Formats: sequence, C-alpha cells, structure tokens
Amino acid sequence: MSKNKIYKPKPISGFPEWLPEVRRAEQAWFDHIRAVFESYGFCNIETPSVEELDAINAKGGDGESDADKEIYVIERLHKEEGDKEARLALHFDQTVPFARYTAQHFNELVFPFKRYQMQRVWRGERPQAGRFREFYQCDIDVINVDSLPLAFDAEMPAIIWEILSSLPGMENETIQIRVSNRKILMGFLESLNIPTRDGGTTKLSDEIISEIVRDIDKLDKMGEEIILSRIDQTGSQAGLGFGLDGSIKPFIKICKQKFTNGEDLEEALVNDANINTSNPTLKEGMRELSFVMNQLSHLPEGAVVADLSIVRGLDYYTGTVYETVFTDDPGYGSICSGGRYDDLAGNYINKHLPGVGISIGFSRLFDRIRQKGTLPVKGVSPADVMVVLPSEEVRSLMMQTAQALRANGNKVETFHSPAKLKKQMAYAEKKGIPYVWFPDLDEVKNMETREQTKANPKDWKHDEN
Amino acid sequence: MSKNKIYKPKPISGFPEWLPEVRRAEQAWFDHIRAVFESYGFCNIETPSVEELDAINAKGGDGESDADKEIYVIERLHKEEGDKEARLALHFDQTVPFARYTAQHFNELVFPFKRYQMQRVWRGERPQAGRFREFYQCDIDVINVDSLPLAFDAEMPAIIWEILSSLPGMENETIQIRVSNRKILMGFLESLNIPTRDGGTTKLSDEIISEIVRDIDKLDKMGEEIILSRIDQTGSQAGLGFGLDGSIKPFIKICKQKFTNGEDLEEALVNDANINTSNPTLKEGMRELSFVMNQLSHLPEGAVVADLSIVRGLDYYTGTVYETVFTDDPGYGSICSGGRYDDLAGNYINKHLPGVGISIGFSRLFDRIRQKGTLPVKGVSPADVMVVLPSEEVRSLMMQTAQALRANGNKVETFHSPAKLKKQMAYAEKKGIPYVWFPDLDEVKNMETREQTKANPKDWKHDEN
Repeated sequence: MSKNKIYKPKPISGFPEWLPEVRRAEQAWFDHIRAVFESYGFCNIETPSVEELDAINAKGGDGESDADKEIYVIERLHKEEGDKEARLALHFDQTVPFARYTAQHFNELVFPFKRYQMQRVWRGERPQAGRFREFYQCDIDVINVDSLPLAFDAEMPAIIWEILSSLPGMENETIQIRVSNRKILMGFLESLNIPTRDGGTTKLSDEIISEIVRDIDKLDKMGEEIILSRIDQTGSQAGLGFGLDGSIKPFIKICKQKFTNGEDLEEALVNDANINTSNPTLKEGMRELSFVMNQLSHLPEGAVVADLSIVRGLDYYTGTVYETVFTDDPGYGSICSGGRYDDLAGNYINKHLPGVGISIGFSRLFDRIRQKGTLPVKGVSPADVMVVLPSEEVRSLMMQTAQALRANGNKVETFHSPAKLKKQMAYAEKKGIPYVWFPDLDEVKNMETREQTKANPKDWKHDEN
Repeated sequence: MSKNKIYKPKPISGFPEWLPEVRRAEQAWFDHIRAVFESYGFCNIETPSVEELDAINAKGGDGESDADKEIYVIERLHKEEGDKEARLALHFDQTVPFARYTAQHFNELVFPFKRYQMQRVWRGERPQAGRFREFYQCDIDVINVDSLPLAFDAEMPAIIWEILSSLPGMENETIQIRVSNRKILMGFLESLNIPTRDGGTTKLSDEIISEIVRDIDKLDKMGEEIILSRIDQTGSQAGLGFGLDGSIKPFIKICKQKFTNGEDLEEALVNDANINTSNPTLKEGMRELSFVMNQLSHLPEGAVVADLSIVRGLDYYTGTVYETVFTDDPGYGSICSGGRYDDLAGNYINKHLPGVGISIGFSRLFDRIRQKGTLPVKGVSPADVMVVLPSEEVRSLMMQTAQALRANGNKVETFHSPAKLKKQMAYAEKKGIPYVWFPDLDEVKNMETREQTKANPKDWKHDEN
C-alpha cells in the first residue's frame, strides 16, 4: 500500500460518470439509436473534440443558445517557448464541426450526404441541476448541393419517433414531436398592415419581426397573456401605438393549438382566426408543412403534431422546425430539436448546401429516465454464464468449457481461484450473471429459478428472451 | 449563400478524422474489440474527458512516458470574475481515470472488478508523423482487493490474441505477444555479487538496478553491444570498475531469445547462461511466468512467447509484463502493452488493489492498417438496399416498401426525388449500396451481378455473406 498522502477524489460538477450497470444501459441506448439511424442509411462520422477557435468564430452554430460564450479552450500545461500553434477549443455542438467537415472534405463526399454523429460536446455553463458541461448529443443531418427534397423533412420525425418510442425505459413516456414551418409565421408577420398613430398603416420591420418571433418561441413557457403584452410593448416602443397585439392575437390563438394535419391547421387559420393566407411565403410554408404531416400520417395519433408555436432560434432555420416534448411535462423543454436550414457551411465554402437535421439531447434525456428509475438495469457483468472452478485440478477443463461456450456466442466469465463454491456463486449473483456452469458435472444452474440441469457446453446457448 | 468572408478549414495536426467509409471500418474494429472484451465478461465504463489537475498530479500514470508533461488543461474562454473552480485537464491515459474511478466508487463496485474502457485520450506532443495528440485506447483491467489470482495474467494475452488475430484487415499481419515477469530480472539483479575495485564484492544499489532495467528495456531497439557498454558505463560511474557487463552478459544473451514455455527458458538460464536461479524473487517470477505460458499453450505456436527483454517502465509494473509487436517490423514498437501491478489506486484510497491490465494503442494501429491499404472498406452508406422513386405517384408505395424491408432487419435508403432512374442508380453505386429496389415492379437488382429478380419486401433479407 502506498505511503503517500491520499487524495480523496470527488465528482466534478457537470461532468457525469455512471456505475458499470448504468453505463450498460447507456450503451444499450447508443446501440439502439445507432441501429435506427443506420436502418435509414445514415453513415457515421466523428470529428476531433477540438476545432480551431478561429473556425468556430467564423460560424456561431444554430443560434439556439449562448453556446459560443461557453467555449472551453485547451492549452498545453507546459508550453514551450515560441509555441505558435492555433488556439483550439472543444466543440460545443456537432453542427459547427459538421459544417467544417463537409466543407473540408467536400470533394470526397457523396451528396445527398446523410450522416449521424454521436459525440460528447462541452459547454462551460454555470453548474446547475440537470445541466451538464460534458454531454452526448446524437445528431442526424442530410445535406445536398443547391437543393434538397422536402421528403427528408418528413424522414427526420419518423426516425426520431422510431427511436424515442422504443428506447429501453421510455415505454411509459408519452412524447410528442411538434412540427412547424417558419415560413408560415414569417409570411404572416410580413403580410400584416399595422395601423400607425397618424392613421396610416405600416409593415413590420425585420427587427420587430425578430422580436416577435423570439416572443412566440416562449409561448409555451410564459403563456398567452404575457406574450401578448410583450408583443404590444414591442409595438409601442416602435411607435406603433395600438393594434399590434390585436393583429397578432388571432394568430397566437392558433399557435396554442395542435393539429394532426396541415389541412385542419389551414382551415383554422382561415376560418377561426380570419387570417389572410395569400402571402406567398405563408402559402409555401403551409404547403410544405402539409406535405410533411401527410408523409407522417402512418405514425400513431398524437406522435407528431403541427404546432405554430415551434420557432427554434432566429436565423439558422428557414423552413420546417421540430421540437419534442413529454406531453405530461412540456415545461421540461425539448428533448430533440432541429429543422431545415438554407445553408450549412457558407462561412467555410463557396457552395450552397441546404439541409435538414435533428439532434437528441442524449445525456439529459438518459439522466432523466435514470433518475425516474424506469431504466432497465441488468447485472454489472455482460456475461451470460460463469464457469466455476471447483478445484485447481479442474482448471484446464474449466478453460475448455469456457472456450466452447464462447464459440457458441455466449459471453462467459470464469472464476479464477478454487474458492468455496458458495463464494463463487455469490460473486455470480452480485454481478447479475444469469447462469453458473459446473464443468466437472456438465451441469448448468439457472440463477433465477435455481434449477440445475445437465448440459453440453458445445451446444448450449443463452436465450436472452 | 453567405456573403461573409470564407474561412477555409484545414486539418489540425495530430487530431485525425476519417472519411465516412473509413469511419465505418473503424466502427467495425470497435465493435469487434467490444464483443471480445464482453465475451470474457468485462463490463464497460466511461469516465469524463477531464480530471482535476490535482488528482492527476497525485498519480503520474504507469510511468511509461512523459505523458504528464504533455497534459492539456481546459479553461473557459470567457471566464467570469471570481471563478474559483478547480483546474481541469484532459486525461492522457485511461489508467489514472480508472484508478480515480475505482477509489471514488469503491463501495459500489463488485470485486474482482473487470472493466474495459475505449475512449479518447489527449497528449500535447510535438506534432510528428504517426503521432496523434488525440487518439483512442482500448484498455482492459481486472483488479481485486488484497490479492488477485495469477490466472488473470494469462487471460489478458488470450483476449488480445483473439482480438488482434481477427481484426478486419489484420489477417496477413504476423503479430506476437511477448511476455515476461519483472521478478525474474529483479531477482537476478538483486542476487548478483559484483566485484569491487578493492577486491571485495557488493550488491547493486536500487538506483543502479533501475538504470540497468531501463537499459534492458531498450535492448530490442539498440542492440546487445550498445546495451552492454551502457551497463558497463553505469557500473564504472558507480565505482564498480570492472565486471558489471561480464556478470550481466549471459543474462542478456537469454534476453535476446524467445521461448514457447517457461521450462525451456529456465533451462536456458541454468544450463546455457549458468545463472544461479536460487534467488526467491527470481524463483517466484519463473514460477509465475511458467504458469502463464502454460495457460496459453492452446494458442498457435509463436502467438505468445516468453521474452526476458520485456520490461515496461520502471515502478508501476511488478510481475507479468506484456508487449505486442509485428514480427516483421519489431522496430515499429509495441501495439498493445500492459502488465501486473501491485496497487492501482494507493494515492486515492487506503485499500490494497492489485491488478493486471493491457491496453491496445487503437488509433495508431488502425492508422497503420489504413495506410497499408488492407482495411476492408465497404460503401459509404451502411444501407443494404436503396428503394428508388420512379415517379411522384409511387412515393407512398416506396415508403411502405422501405418500411417493410426495415421491419425484416434490412438497412434501407430511399431516393427522395423522382429523378431519372439512371441518376438514382448512380447514387446507389457511388454510396456502395449493394441492392436497388424497384417498388413499382416488386423487383430487386444486385448491383454487383446486375441481376434483377422478383421479390417481396416482406420477406427479403440481405444476406451479408
């Protein structure tokens, strides 16, 4: 034993780590997500953990958060004199690295480029409950040169539904993917003729439109009343003394509703809210949203709904947008978000690369289900069976038995010291290994039923069901 | 398209990233390694990418390299005033995090604790060919409280052989795992009575023993002559004017040989080198090495050899030690190394935790095979089959076909725009998708043989062999 002073380790706030049995459940989640992504033909990429700081600054992500203010830079502890290397920063999302990757390898990629990416990202937020500084995201995106079929916008929610509805431990969660198209809101706001104090009318400026969009993004959290009063205040400050909330109120009413298809939504806009839907941007948005919803009609009712309050940030997304919530806890926020963007990598390459993507906030979701206690946690050991060592003389037979069992595709532990059988069994029990094998007896014991039967290691296979 | 100035991205030296088809081969490697680790009942853990700098400084790793001098620290780009957080550093190996993890979660772990870990590590080395600053390691270790059966020392090379001999693309490599036991060398050096200038004899000091061990570690690289002259110089400087190389020469001769079992090695020590093997430490080392070699006798000849020149570092390892080389290119260095240690986490916890472990230098090995061109690189897309869209009217049928094929376990891409069939086929070809499906015809085309046959999506399954 060391005589040094002992440094007692403690958790680092925001940097989670799991016990082996929880990590096993986490691996099962990654395996499941990967399998679904690949079943739709998405290929995987990994990018380095770092980007050049200058590259990050050239593009600030999807504008969703103040992530760029939370950047971690890395630096050698013992720098050498004259070090003139570029400053490197840990990536805070997978969008910036994906854009940089696509630009850098543009000539070697096949388009449409469909990739998934499941890596850690880092954000130096203030430590707080439910917030991680290091966490996994699982992203898929499809990008193409110049134009990308709208059908991909429908593929994203289909994939996400398939994943989330069958993640182990999520069986009793009711989740809902909420879809909108930003063109509807933008077209509506563009089309408004707002009365001014001097008795005329005016169009809303881009700046005011941006502020209203930001407000509507908060509708779910803050409620209709607060949002309407904020919008009215925005109007007043801009010299639009009256009428702003009045013009927008009917639209907000529709924003609060969920629709199972685009036609019902359009009808509500026209008939219930008396909104003029002739604006071309609004029209295009309605057409796109209807197509996407229509493509998703095979999913269970309520799995995907059209919801005009979904906005997602400000500049990055240009069409379809997605959020995903627990319907019994919408205040928890979105667990999976994304949308259509017009140009992925314009800051890195002189190509027009429209795309659509979606991202699962993996670690936050996993931790929620873990804390709820519904995560199916199997034993610590992945082994199907443990071969005991009744005495030193049996060692060679034990090893042969274990190899024969492995050759059949079983996962096998061996107990390497000829301890009392009781102790060996207790070890298998504690590690959650479902079967114990007695090589000297050619017998296997089911640790749950305690049943012990004759068996041949050459043809025994653990049936996991 | 963006009107901003374009920031043209370039690779960051030492931080590799792969094209999708190469990443696919890398994933296949990880899957294979994980499957073998788990088939021996090892569970997985992941630790955060960072440790507290103070925790790292409390324990300097396996002494194998100057890794602690290459530490990267992380720091928020925009620090807030009064930030008083502990300094964090990216881990430079998986041993320090594993030791810290074991100490921190000691009461929640089941011992023997058998874990595997496959994560990135970071070392701020000077950029140079074949050296990465960010790379993957794949480690397994078994630790126990107070004592650990020697049989685990034999399990490590068995696992590594199973992995390395069947990694895709490694089929034509001849690799060899070289095993020694440090007690043999230490016991031998302890037992020497070295003539002094005044005509008496003396034992070697710990310091001189350390230097000689360091020299023998370099035997393979520098050759016998240089090593003997270095050892003699060490002796001279310590006032042991003559005889040091003479005493050690016969042992060095044995170090240069490979043995298929412990008995042959012992016989060579006694009969060929006239070495007195009565030292208790040496005896114990011989007994342990013989046991380990004996347990591995089922492996192909030459897969594992006893080789006394294997030493591995200085302080950390105390018994069995391993290195793994390409026999046709031993100068490339070890691709997989490890050994038995007496105490994993003495700096973090007041428990005696002996263990044995081994680590595959994943990224360096993968990159070597990649550069050799023997890596089996399949298509960019993981899809088994692509369903074409002959016209917009067929879209719904196409989607149903794709879902039916997925339900059978196939990975399926769909072509989402009704482009010319030639263009759709060219896309499948470029992405390396082996089959193309015509939903309107109920026909599937094998892209290699160009054969097109009738098929039902409900019972078609791609047979990968």
